[in-house]
Amino acid sequence: MKFLAITLIAHRPDPVTGVLKSTHERFREVLDNAQLAEELGFDGFGVGERHERPFISSSPTVVLSHVAALTRRIRLFTAVTTLSLLDPVRAYEDYATLDHLSGGRLDLVIGKGNGTAQRELFHVTPEDQWDRNAESYEVFRQLWRQDKVTAKTRFRPELTDAEVWPRPYQQPVRVWHGSATSKESVDLAARYGDPLFSANVTHPIEPYAELIDHYRERWEHYGHDPARIAVGAGSAGLHVARTSQEALDAYRPVFESNLAFQREHGLPEWSEEDRELVQDRLDTRFVGSPGRVADQLEQLRDATGADELLVTTITHDHTARVRSYELLAEEWGRR
Amino acid sequence: MKFLAITLIAHRPDPVTGVLKSTHERFREVLDNAQLAEELGFDGFGVGERHERPFISSSPTVVLSHVAALTRRIRLFTAVTTLSLLDPVRAYEDYATLDHLSGGRLDLVIGKGNGTAQRELFHVTPEDQWDRNAESYEVFRQLWRQDKVTAKTRFRPELTDAEVWPRPYQQPVRVWHGSATSKESVDLAARYGDPLFSANVTHPIEPYAELIDHYRERWEHYGHDPARIAVGAGSAGLHVARTSQEALDAYRPVFESNLAFQREHGLPEWSEEDRELVQDRLDTRFVGSPGRVADQLEQLRDATGADELLVTTITHDHTARVRSYELLAEEWGRR
Repeated sequence: MKFLAITLIAHRPDPVTGVLKSTHERFREVLDNAQLAEELGFDGFGVGERHERPFISSSPTVVLSHVAALTRRIRLFTAVTTLSLLDPVRAYEDYATLDHLSGGRLDLVIGKGNGTAQRELFHVTPEDQWDRNAESYEVFRQLWRQDKVTAKTRFRPELTDAEVWPRPYQQPVRVWHGSATSKESVDLAARYGDPLFSANVTHPIEPYAELIDHYRERWEHYGHDPARIAVGAGSAGLHVARTSQEALDAYRPVFESNLAFQREHGLPEWSEEDRELVQDRLDTRFVGSPGRVADQLEQLRDATGADELLVTTITHDHTARVRSYELLAEEWGRR
Repeated sequence: MKFLAITLIAHRPDPVTGVLKSTHERFREVLDNAQLAEELGFDGFGVGERHERPFISSSPTVVLSHVAALTRRIRLFTAVTTLSLLDPVRAYEDYATLDHLSGGRLDLVIGKGNGTAQRELFHVTPEDQWDRNAESYEVFRQLWRQDKVTAKTRFRPELTDAEVWPRPYQQPVRVWHGSATSKESVDLAARYGDPLFSANVTHPIEPYAELIDHYRERWEHYGHDPARIAVGAGSAGLHVARTSQEALDAYRPVFESNLAFQREHGLPEWSEEDRELVQDRLDTRFVGSPGRVADQLEQLRDATGADELLVTTITHDHTARVRSYELLAEEWGRR
C-alpha cells in the first residue's frame, strides 16, 4: 500500500485572510512540500498539469526536474499529464529527459484534463479531446518503446521513421491512466495493459468502484494476466488536524471560498445537487483527525482494491499543509 | 566581460577510444560541468536545444531546471532555444516556470536552429522557418509582458484575450537573438531592442563582425539608445591543455571524427573549402594553452565589441573537459 501526495499548484488568495502570496513563494512551498514528503517517508510526490487559472502548474516537467535534484528516493508523478493538449513528440522529449535526471523515478498519470480555458488555448474541442488523448498516448508510447516511429497522426504532423532523443532511462515507464468519470480512459488503459488511477474528486466512492470493476473486466477481455493488474485511487481534499472538529472548522471556509471563486470566474460550477452531496459527505473527503482520515483512506483502498493511494491537500495555508502531512505520516506509520 | 560555457549535449562514441557512454552518464557529466562552472566563477552555463542526433538536448528547460536546483549563483542560458520548432505558448509556460525556480537567473538565446531531421520532425520547411521564428518570438514576448494576449497567428491556433500562467519572475527577461549567419535575426533583435549573440561556429571572425556592425546600424535605425546595446560573441571549440601542442594533438582526432560522423550519418557536410579553412584556422578555434586561448578570446571580444563571450567545449572526454574549464578559469582570473 503506497501513499502519494500531489498538488495542482493552485494559486489564489487565502480564503480566510485574503492574502495572495507571490507566485515565487507559491513555487517555493511546492518544493518544500516535496522535500517534506520524502522526509516523512511518502512513496511519491506528484504535480498536476493545468493551463488555466487559478493554477500555475502548466509545466510539470520543469517543476519535477527541480524536485528531482532536491530529493533522492521519492517517486515523481504527474497528476495528470494532459496529453490531449500536448504534442506527444515534445512531451516524450521532456519526460524522457526527466526520466534520466531523476534516475528513473518517473511515473506518469495521463488524462484528458478538463477546463474550458485550457482547451481554448490549444483549440481542443469537447468533441475531439478523447481522440487527441488516445492519439497522443499511442504516439508517446511508441516513441518510448521504439527507436524509430512511423505514425499516421491526425492532430500533429505525421511521423515517418522518426528518431526522437534522448532514448529513455526506464524501459518501459509506468503510465497510469487517470480517470475521473470515463469508460474511454478505462478501456484505453485495459487495452494497453496499463495501470489505472481512479481520481475521485468530489463524489462518493461507488461510481468509481464500478469503473474499476469495468476496468478489471476489460483487462481480462484484452487477454492480460490478472496478476499484473494495478489500480490506484485518489481524492482531492486532504486536511488533517489534531481533532476532527478542528479540521472541519478549518476546511469549511476553504470549501465556501472554492465555490465563490468558481462562480466569480465563470468556471464550471458544481450543481446544487453536487454541492449538497459534497457538504453532506465531508466525511468522505479526508478532512479530520489523523485516525479518522487514515480510516477513510483504508475504506477507499478496500472499496477500490487500490495498491496506491493519492491525495492532494486542500488548504491554502502552508503551515497547515505541512502539519497535515506530518500528522498523517505519523498515523499511517503506526498502521 | 562575462564568460559563459555552453553544451549542446552531444552524445556519440569517443572519437579516440570508440566508447559510447550511457545516455544517463552523459547527462550526469552535464550536471557536473554546470556545478564546476559555478565553482570556477563562470558567469553563465547554457544548454543548447537540438531535436536530432547526435544530440540529447531536446529539453533544455528540464535540464536547466535541474541545474537551477544544483547551483545558486550562475546564470542559466539556452543556446539556442529553437522557437521556430515550438509552440510559443508551451515555450512561455516552461520558461516562465524555470524563471521562478531559478530565482530569476534565466537568460534566453533564441534562434531558428538548423538541421534537416528536426525540421522534418515538426514539419517546418526551409521556406517558413524564418516566419515561424519571428511569429513565435512575437507571441512569446507578448505573453511574457502582458497578462492578456490576442494574436492573429499563422503557425499555431490564434489567441484571443488569452491568459497564460504562471506570470514570470523577471520582467522583462533578457532574450538574446542568436545569429550564425542571418540579417533576418539581426534585424529582429534590433527592432525589439534586444541583445545579439553572434555565434561563430566554424568560420573566421570577419563576417560576424560585419553582422554586428549591421546590428548596430539597425539598432539606431529603430531609435534605440546606443548606450543600451549589448552584444555577445560565441564559438564552438574550446579545448585547453597545459601546452598548445598537447591541445592540438588531442583536438585533431576529434575534428576528424566529427567529419566522419557527419559523412556516415548523411548530415550536412562541410565543403572541402570550409574544411580547409577550418584546418588552416585551428588557431581561431580556442584550442591551445591557457594563455593562447585567453588571447584568442580577447581577440574575439575586441573584433566584435562583445560584452559576453560564450564557448562550448569540443572534447568528448569528461576529464579533459573539466581540465579545460579549470585551466581557462585560472588564466582568465589573472587578466
